[in-house]
This record gives sequence, structure tokens and C-alpha cells, in this order.
Amino acid sequence: MIVEVINTGSELLLGNTVNTHLAFLGQELFPLGLRIARQVTVPDGEEIRDALVEALARADIILVTGGLGPTTDDITREITAELLHLPLIEDQATWTAIQERFARRGFEMTARNRRQAQAPQGSTVLANPNGTAPGLYLRHAEGGVTRHLFLIPGPPRELRPMFQDTIAPILKQLTAGHTPLLSRRWLVIGLGESKVESIIGEALLAIPGLELGYCARPGAVEVRCIGSSAALAAAEAIITEKLPTQVAGEGGASLEEVVVHRLTALGKTLAAAESCTGGNLANKITNIPGASAIFLAGFVTYSNESKTRALGVPAELIAQHGAVSDPVARAMAEGALDRASADFALATTGVAGPGGGTPDKPVGTVFIALAIRGAATRVSRHSFPTDRATFKDLTVQTALDVLRAVLA
Amino acid sequence: MIVEVINTGSELLLGNTVNTHLAFLGQELFPLGLRIARQVTVPDGEEIRDALVEALARADIILVTGGLGPTTDDITREITAELLHLPLIEDQATWTAIQERFARRGFEMTARNRRQAQAPQGSTVLANPNGTAPGLYLRHAEGGVTRHLFLIPGPPRELRPMFQDTIAPILKQLTAGHTPLLSRRWLVIGLGESKVESIIGEALLAIPGLELGYCARPGAVEVRCIGSSAALAAAEAIITEKLPTQVAGEGGASLEEVVVHRLTALGKTLAAAESCTGGNLANKITNIPGASAIFLAGFVTYSNESKTRALGVPAELIAQHGAVSDPVARAMAEGALDRASADFALATTGVAGPGGGTPDKPVGTVFIALAIRGAATRVSRHSFPTDRATFKDLTVQTALDVLRAVLA
Repeated sequence: MIVEVINTGSELLLGNTVNTHLAFLGQELFPLGLRIARQVTVPDGEEIRDALVEALARADIILVTGGLGPTTDDITREITAELLHLPLIEDQATWTAIQERFARRGFEMTARNRRQAQAPQGSTVLANPNGTAPGLYLRHAEGGVTRHLFLIPGPPRELRPMFQDTIAPILKQLTAGHTPLLSRRWLVIGLGESKVESIIGEALLAIPGLELGYCARPGAVEVRCIGSSAALAAAEAIITEKLPTQVAGEGGASLEEVVVHRLTALGKTLAAAESCTGGNLANKITNIPGASAIFLAGFVTYSNESKTRALGVPAELIAQHGAVSDPVARAMAEGALDRASADFALATTGVAGPGGGTPDKPVGTVFIALAIRGAATRVSRHSFPTDRATFKDLTVQTALDVLRAVLA
Repeated sequence: MIVEVINTGSELLLGNTVNTHLAFLGQELFPLGLRIARQVTVPDGEEIRDALVEALARADIILVTGGLGPTTDDITREITAELLHLPLIEDQATWTAIQERFARRGFEMTARNRRQAQAPQGSTVLANPNGTAPGLYLRHAEGGVTRHLFLIPGPPRELRPMFQDTIAPILKQLTAGHTPLLSRRWLVIGLGESKVESIIGEALLAIPGLELGYCARPGAVEVRCIGSSAALAAAEAIITEKLPTQVAGEGGASLEEVVVHRLTALGKTLAAAESCTGGNLANKITNIPGASAIFLAGFVTYSNESKTRALGVPAELIAQHGAVSDPVARAMAEGALDRASADFALATTGVAGPGGGTPDKPVGTVFIALAIRGAATRVSRHSFPTDRATFKDLTVQTALDVLRAVLA
């Protein structure tokens, strides 16, 4: 079955909002044996019509996100009804639920909210416990083919539970009897994309029915294989044989997952002392379920004084070498190791920019230190002259890889 | 001029990677007077052809991302050349640059890398200082119309500088003489989307040439206006008159920007004590340039012991009430205020899940505390029963809004 996704919303095309729906839906659909063949983003308004007409001509399952809100720019419901020649009829249960929701939250209703209770005739209303706009499921039969059209509200905290609780069960019925393919990803560190392919590509392509992809990541190459469980087992054997030391993460694990899982397996603990990454390292680590077993404490020591007070970095050391320096990174890591009683401590200090650069230490300069209980502290200097957010991400990736290499 | 974006990459449709290119390009194009009319994502491989054919029939400017790497699944260059009937010719400067790059990084070259030096005849090669694949710019004249086609490498740290340094100047020439529209966004807190529209919608729609949009955000509604500077000034007058206390951020400022800017204006400082948000709060704040002027220190106290050691939360308090409790949130905030000598301190403690819930405090329960120098600490309890990452984001948004309300 061919699946297409239509994301509506001018904010996506203006760049005010990053589209996280596509990745969410792609991840959720795959285990159901479904893959998105094409995704399109259109602005709010009449352009939704063209995208719907095109998708209806190609796809069996169409997921449309957004445009179900109460405001005048939300017209997905109306355009769909018009296109399929279905009258809009008020759904009593929805109207009651909307009224109750407003009463519960103490928000004032307006006439516009009543529009959200309307549903194209014959559609199935998908309850939305997290917002006013229900989802809608329409079966559209034309020329002997039935298309399955889902209209889903745009806010992620409404869309996600609605997909998992209501839409996924419907899709499961539609795909009953299919054997879904499996997907696995491996993160390869320290080799270029072309080199990775030259080592494993030919052998992997010889596996019948295996789909192979490569994706360059910061400091790593992700190898993606899709196929039957037998094909994936064959791929795994080849990858672990031919790249014995370079595979950091299996199953598409991120570096932070690899680090959390290795530390958990070893029964070791971690602390973080962050200046320039400002909590990004701790945040990435604590995104991993189970991180509380290994992550003891993070110190975001943005000011010089806090480096001294929270981590015991001598003020003279900062005065002498500057906060962005090898000795201060070292003292931060050792301070965090000590204060948190951890087995490992990572520290970052650098110039994220846009301000703060000097000829000696231009914007992008960063020192990463790893303190290890019972072993010498390691410090490395790097340069990531880029925008502030990318700088923080690259620094965190590099710090995680420094630790990974030690844990390997 | 009509702009379309084609993002290639199976990883985007499988959900392994979030598409951040679209938002980046949308933000960069707007000040040039250009808006993206439509965006499509297709998998690696032959599907790029259909998307290109369709875009060439509709758009004046087409930006294609991805598929320029050295591996066998990267064929954007080849498909484009074939579609436009252009032979591929090796570009000597590119080949030299690739060889130098490999030598500099100590990476081994493979035969595949030489493919990346090929360019369709007549195209302009766009240098890539951050990777091996250059970008390509093709002018395609057909039926008296010239289409401008840009092929851009997929890794964000290659795409972003290439767009800003090389492509934007070309687009500026193409759009010379146009007067770009302006965009402004306001974040409205504490009112539903329909209520916001009922207050300001009619008056805003009466402004000639103003384009109006609403977007529901966690705990807020974003109002977006696009138009001439006169239209935007009129919109601002209406919004600030009709929503005098509810507008948190102007110009599309995020809550963290609002908080950083208010604290900077007031000359006040902030500390953070995070348990369940694990550094996400500090990370959001330190994403804002200039945050170092107001953010002194963050304490990511994930373990109970670290709450005691880093923040001075009495161990008995944790034993008696549990780490996720009103008294512990309060003690964390007050401990951070004290240890960092800050004017304000925010603390979070909750159950992010998936594990760790109890009947009393199910997954999603969170306490947020705000300690204020010279005033009483405020603690509030919330419930965000959702996935781990969304839970962390909603908690941070709510904490920032607690502070914003005090600073207003």
C-alpha cells in the first residue's frame, strides 16, 4: 500500500516551525509494514486542494496534518469535504466534548469553535483528548479503489497520541497479513562515507532483498539496512566482521544511547561540566530512557564564578589561562568527577559565538576534557566555526565520542 | 518568483532524520523576498526524477537537497543531468579540492569520490569548504522561461554555509528590485486560539495587504503577520491595544528569548536546578545569544545525592516527601538561588517516564519552583503525561512562562 503525507501550514514553509510530524509518522508506520512514498508541505489555504487531488491519484493511504483549528486559516476539513462532495454535518459527541473541554479549562468559547465539531458525512470522528479538533477518517471509493484519508490536528501533542491510539489500530487492520520488513542502522565512526561503502558495500549488496542506505552524520556515517530478519542477520555479520572497531552504535543508536548503554552495562556513572554547551550534553544524555541509572549530575557553569563555586576551578587558573583553555577544561572535568563522585566526567568550554572570539581563540574554539576515576584526564582542542546551535551539537557529539572511545 | 524545495533522502521518510532544511531555507529566503510555495520529500533513487519534472513545470527557483554524496544511493547529480540532457563533465578545480581535502584529513580516497567532481555541462560549481560534494547551479531555459535549479549537499553543516555564502547572493541578483515583505510574530499566552482570533482577527483582517496566520504552541498561540512595514505597524498597534497583558514575545520571540531579554533589560540573573528536564532548560536559555550576561549556573541534579550535594537539599526532605514533591522543588530552587547568588532560580522535578511512575505521582507529574531573591518561592504542580522528550519540552516551556509572568 502506497502512503503519502501532506503537511499543511504556512509556518513550516516560512521556517517558523520545524516539521517533526514526518519523522514521527515515518517511525510509527514502518513497524506496521508501511513506508511513506512521498511527503509534501503546502501553505494554509487553497493549495491543500491540489495536494489532495494529486495524492488521491497515487496513494492508498493519505495522512494530512494541520488545518483543523478554529481560526480562519484552518480549512483542511472544508476543502476535503468539498473535494469529495460530502456535506459537513455537526457531530454531537464532538460538540459536547468541545464544550466540556472549554468549561474544564475555564476558557471562553467563540462561535468559531463550533466549526470544529463538523465532520464530512460518512467520516469516522477520531477523538482528541488533548485538544478541541477531532481527527477524521474518510474512506473514499472511486473507480473500484478505496483510498483511506486521515485528517489529523497539527499540534504534536495532539497528533502523536491520536496516531498511536486511534489511527495505528485502523492501519493495522488494513495491513493485516503483511509481513513487515525490519530496519537496522549502524553508526560508523572515523571513516568517510565512500570508505565505509568500499569496505562493506559490495558484500551487503550481494544479500538478496536487502535495501542499503548511507547517511553522513556529524563525525560519523550511518549505514541503514532494510530487509527480512535473515537478510539483516547476514548484514550484521558482514558489518561486524569488516568494521570490527568502527561501529559505535547498533540498531540506529545515537552516540548518547551508546554511551548510556555502555555505562549501564559496565555499572559506571557519569557527570558533566558544561560551559559553552550550556546543558546540551546533559539534555542529550537525559533524553535516553534509563539515563538516571548512570547520570549523576550536570553542572552548567556559565559564569567564571560558578566554575569556581560549583566545580572548585581555582579563580587564578581562569585569570591566568582564560575560561576557554586546556587547564580550565581539565579542572572542570576533575571538579565534576569529584563533586558528583562519578566514574567519568566530561567537560566543555569554548566560544559558541556570535560574540566572544579573540585572535587566539576565535569563535568556534572549544576544549573538551574527560576525567576518569583512577586514570589521567584527557583534554582535546577542537574548532567548530559555525552557528551557535550547530556548535553546541558538534561539541556534544565530539565529547560523547571521546567517552565512547574510552568505553569501547 | 515561485520557489519549490525538493528534499531527497529515505532517512527523512523513514523518520530516522528530522528535516531541518526546510525551516532553514524558509527563514533564509523570506528576507530575500522569496517564499517557498511547496516542498516535497522523496526517497533516494529514481523518484527524484518525477519530483524534478513536476517542479520544473511550476517553479522559477528549485532547491534540491541531498543525494550528492559518494555512495551508490546518491544519484541527484546523475538524474538531473539525464533529465536536462546534459553530459557530466569532470570539474578540475573540484577534483583537486576533493583530493586536497582527503589528504588534509588523512582519509583514504576511493574511486567513488571522483564522481563527486562531475558537473552537468554548463552548470556553475558551488564550492563546498565543509565537505567533498560541491553544490551545482543550473539555468534551464525552455519555452522562453528560465528555471533556476540549485543542487545542494544534504549535511546541514555543508548546506547552511553554502546557501548563505554562495546561493543567497545569486538569489539576491535574481530578485533585485523587488521590495521584500516583512514578517512579525507575537506569542500570546493564556488564551485559546479561537479567543485570540475573536479579539484581534476582525481588526487585523481590515488592514489592507496584511496576511494573517495563527499557530497553536504549547501553552501559547502564535500570531503571524506578513505585510509592508506600514501594515505591520498597524497590526502591532491593534495587538498591543487589544491584548495588553497577554503578549509575551514580539517579533516571533520564543519564551526563552523573552526571558533572556527581560532579565538583561532588568540587569537580573538566573540559575536553574533541573532534575526531570535534565539540562533542557539550561540548554534552551543558553541557545540565546547573550545568555551569558544573565545565566549564571545550572545544576542538573539527576540523582538524589546530587540534589543534596550540589544544591543542599536535605536528604531527610527527599526521604520524607520523595524527590518529586513540592518541598524538594522548593529546596532545589532556593539552593540554586543561594549557590549561584542569582536573582531568580527555576527548579524542575518530575517523572519523565517511561518508568518511575507511582499511583500518587504518575508518569508526567512535575513540580516547578521559582525562587526569587527577597520574595517568597512559588511552587506549582503540573501533569504532562506524554513521551519523554515532549514532557521535558512542556515542563521547560511552563517553567519559562512562570518566570516570564513574574518579570512582566
